[in-house]
Amino acid sequence: MELLKSHRTIRKYLPKTIPEDILNELLESGIQASNTGNMQLYSILITRNEEKKALLAPLHFNQPMVLAAPLLLTICLDMNRFSKWCKINHTYTDFSNLLWLLNGIIDSAILTQNICVAAENEGLGICYLGTALYNAPEISTILSLPSGVIPITALTIGYPEIVPEKTDRLPLEAVIHDEEYRDYSDDSISRIYREKENLESSKQFVKDNVKENLAQVYAEVRYKSTDNVFFSKKLVDWLSDQGFGF
Amino acid sequence: MELLKSHRTIRKYLPKTIPEDILNELLESGIQASNTGNMQLYSILITRNEEKKALLAPLHFNQPMVLAAPLLLTICLDMNRFSKWCKINHTYTDFSNLLWLLNGIIDSAILTQNICVAAENEGLGICYLGTALYNAPEISTILSLPSGVIPITALTIGYPEIVPEKTDRLPLEAVIHDEEYRDYSDDSISRIYREKENLESSKQFVKDNVKENLAQVYAEVRYKSTDNVFFSKKLVDWLSDQGFGF
Repeated sequence: MELLKSHRTIRKYLPKTIPEDILNELLESGIQASNTGNMQLYSILITRNEEKKALLAPLHFNQPMVLAAPLLLTICLDMNRFSKWCKINHTYTDFSNLLWLLNGIIDSAILTQNICVAAENEGLGICYLGTALYNAPEISTILSLPSGVIPITALTIGYPEIVPEKTDRLPLEAVIHDEEYRDYSDDSISRIYREKENLESSKQFVKDNVKENLAQVYAEVRYKSTDNVFFSKKLVDWLSDQGFGF
Repeated sequence: MELLKSHRTIRKYLPKTIPEDILNELLESGIQASNTGNMQLYSILITRNEEKKALLAPLHFNQPMVLAAPLLLTICLDMNRFSKWCKINHTYTDFSNLLWLLNGIIDSAILTQNICVAAENEGLGICYLGTALYNAPEISTILSLPSGVIPITALTIGYPEIVPEKTDRLPLEAVIHDEEYRDYSDDSISRIYREKENLESSKQFVKDNVKENLAQVYAEVRYKSTDNVFFSKKLVDWLSDQGFGF
């Protein structure tokens, strides 16, 4: 519990290789996690090769962790292995739809988080790269993924060089609802976000981006509509090419 | 690591309440997990009320854990809170697309898995209910979820009455790929699934369902195309009503 509560994202790593037996333990811990029908609709791509990392780095928007970390894992939803198993057993089921995309994504994420917890328990640090979904088609090419294998998320893992301060979270009561959802009033929203807005780092963030408030930095700079719509369309188009219908 | 590797799904619970301080610790452990841009696009609905559980049970296909467990959590993607924050700050960003549905789902799943690990560390047992996505619209009504709040998964949590044997997993080498995806031949598929197919429980499963092999039970009984297509269309239609465009 203390381990989970002391989680920090690690972006600076020591130039120290992760021993093979520890990597294996992390992955074994990952696959023990619950998954839909125990079908294990996922695959884990291991990247340690420097040239490969150099090809992947721009697809993760050149976040420096990709080159700095000794290990990059790309966690993929994998319908390919299961389909092939069905095929040699003269059967078939249709997973090429939104529900099964989401089932596979949930299973992949659960697996990934188990790897993270196991890694932190070993004194390693991790950083999630949400960019895997943004550039899934290109990542797929570099990792030679066949049809039906979709990059969901990626992790950099290594021994921490710098352990930063813990990041803030909204107060717990802001995200839990007892028995029924109680919707937020303007007042409760202001109260929930007050501490976050008043952090020195948030104020600096607003200033650096020449905005009036923190919400505007999120909505107009970091995650603005044009980017969201662009990358979502790119993903939908590619998933359609992969046979997914929505 | 041993904790993660000894994970079992618990379906039978003792009639023993989870103390409030332990529940709080589980939830605090959950929200410390990594999440996209630290926006915390999720909410957790807590169900302990027996009448509420009785309403939810059929939507989880009457799996007995729902009524047997002292605690049911429904983990939701939540765009509502963030949108309201943007609104009172006179800004807006468009998250009503596939990319952000997936980002929010990944964050929700990571949060959920942290709760599971924390629970098991406390001697509690958990069971995931993938059915949350199948009947998301009806669950949403019972939990009074506003637009933009989507049930992703659910967990039953309680003190184990019976701790079953560990479930099988494919050999680790079946799901990992070093540097590049090496696709599966018919032979390698047969080898990967052999141990699973040869389990007594699998053989019984095949016999009970009057099928020729295990893959057919999965593809033609448990997760057959007509069900997959039906529940996926239901989900797509409801998400479209919620404003998501694909």
